[in-house]
Amino acid sequence: MAYFVESFWGERNNGFDVLYHNMKHGHLSTKDLADFIRERATIEETYSRSMTKLAKSASNYTQLGTFAPVWDVFKTSTEKLASCHLDLVRRLQELIKEVHKYGDEQIKAYKKTKEDVSGTLEAVQNIQSITQALQKSKENYNAKCVEQERLKKEGATQREIEKAAVKSKKATDTYKLYVEKYAAFKSDFELKMTETAQKFQDIEEMHLLRMKEIIQSLSNTIKEIHLQIGEVHEEFINNMTNTTVESLIQKFAESKGTGKERPGPIEFEECNTSSVAEGIKP
Amino acid sequence: MAYFVESFWGERNNGFDVLYHNMKHGHLSTKDLADFIRERATIEETYSRSMTKLAKSASNYTQLGTFAPVWDVFKTSTEKLASCHLDLVRRLQELIKEVHKYGDEQIKAYKKTKEDVSGTLEAVQNIQSITQALQKSKENYNAKCVEQERLKKEGATQREIEKAAVKSKKATDTYKLYVEKYAAFKSDFELKMTETAQKFQDIEEMHLLRMKEIIQSLSNTIKEIHLQIGEVHEEFINNMTNTTVESLIQKFAESKGTGKERPGPIEFEECNTSSVAEGIKP
Repeated sequence: MAYFVESFWGERNNGFDVLYHNMKHGHLSTKDLADFIRERATIEETYSRSMTKLAKSASNYTQLGTFAPVWDVFKTSTEKLASCHLDLVRRLQELIKEVHKYGDEQIKAYKKTKEDVSGTLEAVQNIQSITQALQKSKENYNAKCVEQERLKKEGATQREIEKAAVKSKKATDTYKLYVEKYAAFKSDFELKMTETAQKFQDIEEMHLLRMKEIIQSLSNTIKEIHLQIGEVHEEFINNMTNTTVESLIQKFAESKGTGKERPGPIEFEECNTSSVAEGIKP
Repeated sequence: MAYFVESFWGERNNGFDVLYHNMKHGHLSTKDLADFIRERATIEETYSRSMTKLAKSASNYTQLGTFAPVWDVFKTSTEKLASCHLDLVRRLQELIKEVHKYGDEQIKAYKKTKEDVSGTLEAVQNIQSITQALQKSKENYNAKCVEQERLKKEGATQREIEKAAVKSKKATDTYKLYVEKYAAFKSDFELKMTETAQKFQDIEEMHLLRMKEIIQSLSNTIKEIHLQIGEVHEEFINNMTNTTVESLIQKFAESKGTGKERPGPIEFEECNTSSVAEGIKP
């Protein structure tokens, strides 16, 4: 639909100005989007670093007792979470580069557009100035007309009336000239403005499409990482299920056990003097 | 399976000591788990705060241009992400309270157990001291026996031989007494240690079950929040799909449009002196 071609006319003919500035705001929104993604990347990086620190805490917790092996499960899972978020950071940074590249292309395209629409800018200035000039020439024509009538009524000299008639004729010519000029400028302005309004709408459509593509790329990345995080959670739950109470008890008994031999019976041993004597010799 | 009853015997009979300390380590692991969850909660809180800040950035970006309404979609979604993580923080804090409550119960239970197993500690000390005493009495008995034989062989006086015989008889009696005592202590130790080892295993099993319950509660909470975050992502994707290029173009044309009226034709207007004269009067 030709939204721009329909909506940027109006009394003062400054629709061109609004649309031209809007094109520049397109570049601002690209910069804003890059900033937004960068800020998000910074948040994810901080989160990832904190998770790495948390994983280290998990390995620093007591390695004594039956529960100790569970900390390995926490450590592995927390490290993987940190890694998912770091992966997100890397992919966001790639995306930021893409946004900047687009921003640069945008500036070049805008410079070219500025040249392309320079004729329209001229047409706008023409219609704006001729509108004013036409108004003034009409007022002047009316004033001179009234002046001529007044002199006639008040019975002024022939010379005075003739002078007023010359002025009136000149004002009429100027007024008529401006009416013609206005018609020409108006037609030129309408033609050029129609074309340019559509051009600006095309630029906006292209810009919004590109922005939506970038945002979709952002969404996809976040969604993929979200799925990866979900897998890390599932893995943690499975690992915890496999870390049974019995296996922990068994592991502890095996690693910290003091021996399976119960104290043996001790009988009275009759002294065998010869062997004992030998036994106590140096 | 009776892992503890089988694995905590051995030459020096200090399995009791290992198991008793292990019980205390159980409380350490509870404290560690509370610390771990607290650290995680702190990380989530920081993340949530940063997301709230990011949402504010989104609403501070340029409100000019066709892209402006998209920032509302970002703002809403980012605020919801912040809220999900804050919800996680609250639930983790609840869980930490539960862990502390369990830790307090644990201390009480340990104090009771310490009393319950005091008899076993005594039995351990008994068998450890009788084993040493028995060894010494056996060495003394052998030494006295050899001394008596030596005197006989070297033709010592009857008096000397009789004196040695008395000493040997005394050493024999002590040795025999300790052999008997050892048998009684050994039997008592074996009985009490078997019972206590099983008691310590029961305590560990209960502890590990409780810890696994807490961890499951943690996993469930994290999983639920993860699902909520996934819904926020889906909603964002849907909102972006609904924010079409056409709707953005239309919205801009409606809010920033300068008018739908093209410049009208302007004709030459003949001067009507009476009306004009009135028109220019003050």
